[in-house]
Amino acid sequence: MALCGLRAWSPEALERRVAAVEATGLGEGWTEGSRGRGPGYRFRDPDGHRFELYYEVERYDPPEHLRPSLKNQPQRYTGRGAAVKRLDHVNVLAADVRASREFAQQALDYRLYERIELDDGSEAGAWLSVSIAAHELIYTRDAYGARGRLHHLAFWVDTREECLRAADLFLDNDIHIEAAPSKHAIAQGFFLYGIEPGGNRIEVTTGGYFVFDPDQPTVVWSSAERAKGQAWGVQTVESFHTYGTPPVPGAPLAH
Amino acid sequence: MALCGLRAWSPEALERRVAAVEATGLGEGWTEGSRGRGPGYRFRDPDGHRFELYYEVERYDPPEHLRPSLKNQPQRYTGRGAAVKRLDHVNVLAADVRASREFAQQALDYRLYERIELDDGSEAGAWLSVSIAAHELIYTRDAYGARGRLHHLAFWVDTREECLRAADLFLDNDIHIEAAPSKHAIAQGFFLYGIEPGGNRIEVTTGGYFVFDPDQPTVVWSSAERAKGQAWGVQTVESFHTYGTPPVPGAPLAH
Amino acid sequence: MALCGLRAWSPEALERRVAAVEATGLGEGWTEGSRGRGPGYRFRDPDGHRFELYYEVERYDPPEHLRPSLKNQPQRYTGRGAAVKRLDHVNVLAADVRASREFAQQALDYRLYERIELDDGSEAGAWLSVSIAAHELIYTRDAYGARGRLHHLAFWVDTREECLRAADLFLDNDIHIEAAPSKHAIAQGFFLYGIEPGGNRIEVTTGGYFVFDPDQPTVVWSSAERAKGQAWGVQTVESFHTYGTPPVPGAPLAH
Amino acid sequence: MALCGLRAWSPEALERRVAAVEATGLGEGWTEGSRGRGPGYRFRDPDGHRFELYYEVERYDPPEHLRPSLKNQPQRYTGRGAAVKRLDHVNVLAADVRASREFAQQALDYRLYERIELDDGSEAGAWLSVSIAAHELIYTRDAYGARGRLHHLAFWVDTREECLRAADLFLDNDIHIEAAPSKHAIAQGFFLYGIEPGGNRIEVTTGGYFVFDPDQPTVVWSSAERAKGQAWGVQTVESFHTYGTPPVPGAPLAH
Repeated sequence: MALCGLRAWSPEALERRVAAVEATGLGEGWTEGSRGRGPGYRFRDPDGHRFELYYEVERYDPPEHLRPSLKNQPQRYTGRGAAVKRLDHVNVLAADVRASREFAQQALDYRLYERIELDDGSEAGAWLSVSIAAHELIYTRDAYGARGRLHHLAFWVDTREECLRAADLFLDNDIHIEAAPSKHAIAQGFFLYGIEPGGNRIEVTTGGYFVFDPDQPTVVWSSAERAKGQAWGVQTVESFHTYGTPPVPGAPLAH
Repeated sequence: MALCGLRAWSPEALERRVAAVEATGLGEGWTEGSRGRGPGYRFRDPDGHRFELYYEVERYDPPEHLRPSLKNQPQRYTGRGAAVKRLDHVNVLAADVRASREFAQQALDYRLYERIELDDGSEAGAWLSVSIAAHELIYTRDAYGARGRLHHLAFWVDTREECLRAADLFLDNDIHIEAAPSKHAIAQGFFLYGIEPGGNRIEVTTGGYFVFDPDQPTVVWSSAERAKGQAWGVQTVESFHTYGTPPVPGAPLAH
Repeated sequence: MALCGLRAWSPEALERRVAAVEATGLGEGWTEGSRGRGPGYRFRDPDGHRFELYYEVERYDPPEHLRPSLKNQPQRYTGRGAAVKRLDHVNVLAADVRASREFAQQALDYRLYERIELDDGSEAGAWLSVSIAAHELIYTRDAYGARGRLHHLAFWVDTREECLRAADLFLDNDIHIEAAPSKHAIAQGFFLYGIEPGGNRIEVTTGGYFVFDPDQPTVVWSSAERAKGQAWGVQTVESFHTYGTPPVPGAPLAH
Repeated sequence: MALCGLRAWSPEALERRVAAVEATGLGEGWTEGSRGRGPGYRFRDPDGHRFELYYEVERYDPPEHLRPSLKNQPQRYTGRGAAVKRLDHVNVLAADVRASREFAQQALDYRLYERIELDDGSEAGAWLSVSIAAHELIYTRDAYGARGRLHHLAFWVDTREECLRAADLFLDNDIHIEAAPSKHAIAQGFFLYGIEPGGNRIEVTTGGYFVFDPDQPTVVWSSAERAKGQAWGVQTVESFHTYGTPPVPGAPLAH
């Protein structure tokens, strides 16, 4: 997987996070900034995914033809394609979900909102966030025990109607639909999963809940509960549990 | 199945339809009106489903507490439950789809918008309408070769959001969801299928297209095309192809 | 206004309509077909708007890059701009609404679903349809007593969300929004009105009701009822009552 | 206005906030907890609105018949009425917006996302949040210079369709609609405003943006920009600028 950037909340927060990561022995050191970012501190999570912490950024200034009518909007609304609004969350695979999840909580200060604990006591998934959004970073189990792989990138749209519309666009633009629009049980987000031309799984998502509660207990799902499928009973397609990028040599593709 | 009422467009249209039905030998004769209907002519389709043609009706006059704010609306909007607006279509099963479909076209003047023709030349489904709506009467094949059974009744809501909302209501009111909201390939309607407490399959539906074209060719779907699943690739659940009411003794239920 | 085409339901229906129009003395005679249409019969309504009746058409065959994935769809879904699906209705202005409305009913066989009758007994608007759709042809009063003018052309989208999305597109593409999305009282359609670059008013619309009832009484709105504004109380902007195209010399524009 | 509760993020955060409020001289002291809340610290903002800071709460445990199917949901979805999900924000009026806004930032640690600065340099409104949500506390100018009044309480629904549906419910339940559904320019939330039977203005809201940016500049709107109306050009109804609760004796009502 490419590098996942994490912006700290303040210069002080950046220092605190870097110190916490360094203490784990997983730090790799500072880099100069690039592409609109200031200096960054690189590290790997226990599973080997690459991250970079930074604070300084260069603010986007739209060119004349993309200036919005409403000044509280970064850019004109063009409505092209699925017209996603922003990156919503990243779901990575891990050979050992619990180890990476604990690292995210302890070194990166993520909160843990939901997780799956199978009957054998192992952890199959963890939904983490540093904000009131239901998830910003997700770890799910790598079916092959491989390391450093991506499950999917999720892009936000404001409405479920836009997810449905995106499905029509995927269909008529030959983007393989791995999972048609429906509602997740975990985190209750509305989803559409497809495979982009490069082979990565992407999600168009909206909805879910917001956690305004500072001491909300983590919701733990059991094997039996997960067997019920998604919120409205849709059974998850097999490839969703196995396919990731880069693909494991010899493993089946999602499409 | 209970009786399916069909209102004729005018007294003259009623006479024409009755004459056409009588000519097929499937007529059963006139009944006095009841429950707000004038005199009706009863008959069975070739598969044995019971129908009644009539023209006269008593118009609904809402009680005081249900009078709407807008006078072009039959009743106040209460928003209760799935808040369906009207019956949209009826889908019955038939041992011989083609025979009943041809009867509907010839004796009842339905137009045929879409149908399924399997590789063996048999007809597995037919979507019929007497208006610009994409379907009002649907025949699909009875997997058990039984006669006179119901596949589902479909109730209309104006928006896809209401179908999604209905799914949440079904889930939290223990109404078995047989098929979660998604989009049909045939007729392109948006659907949610559940099993009501009496055991009948019901649909909450919206969308689809309207046929303003007087000579639109019938769309014919092949076995291979149907194998692709619904519009966004969702594979239809097995019970959808087999379950009907009344259930065939010994056959699996939908839930 | 340009020519408004009306396709007859059958060759026989075309003959019947032509005979009925000829009998009114407003007929202008046959033309050869053009642009995918067969022979057409031209006439003017009592207000002077030009119409053409025809039956034969050439069916659209999409080029390779626009072939849809679902064969019951005329073309691939591209999602560009407001992505309207079809023309929904035409609203013309008339110096004498009643005269043109009666002509539409008698010569063209339209049904009258709703109308406005002011306290002085004059008719300020009439909503007509030849199908179960709530309106296909609308006459509203020309505030200047001018003749042959257009009020607006309405384009259909399947969802209210698409009307809201179109408003964002209008805003960021400098299309003047004359009336922001809301719900009509009459016919209950959801609307967005804008002025296209050529100066004509256009509507992006969805919703409303369907009239399955063959003898539905015409809904008549009074001056007092109209004073309540649109369905949710929005007061109609003044230009909506006065602006039409071509503009009356010296009259205010809609923007 | 009744008391506005503010839950601190932790016991330590509660102590910090109480100390900051005490330092301003606006504190009123501790109270015992009640109605599921632990001990609270009461104070008034510079305009006189009453607040209470607290941390401890008793968690809601739904009765048997309201247990949800999905365990990450506080209660079964009943779908009754507008079916609002949670309180979203509180908008209070202030004689001196700037004074109260600065207090909220300094003593309560709110972030300021948007504000209105009129041509005379005075502040007419301020949109504040302690989370990534676009607003949780709003101050707008009291047209009468009165103190301690409420502008509105806003309740969240997940979709714009639910705002539109709520408008139909308001209409048919005689809840005065002060402002029909549309989109705000400031914060870009979708709104519906009504007056509940007790006379308070309430909003059903959704949408808007989320501020993931830790150093997002405050958006400042001028008199000229505000004169353009809401996002799609809807002019705000006059009562929206003047009506608040309790009403100023002799002032016009919103309905």
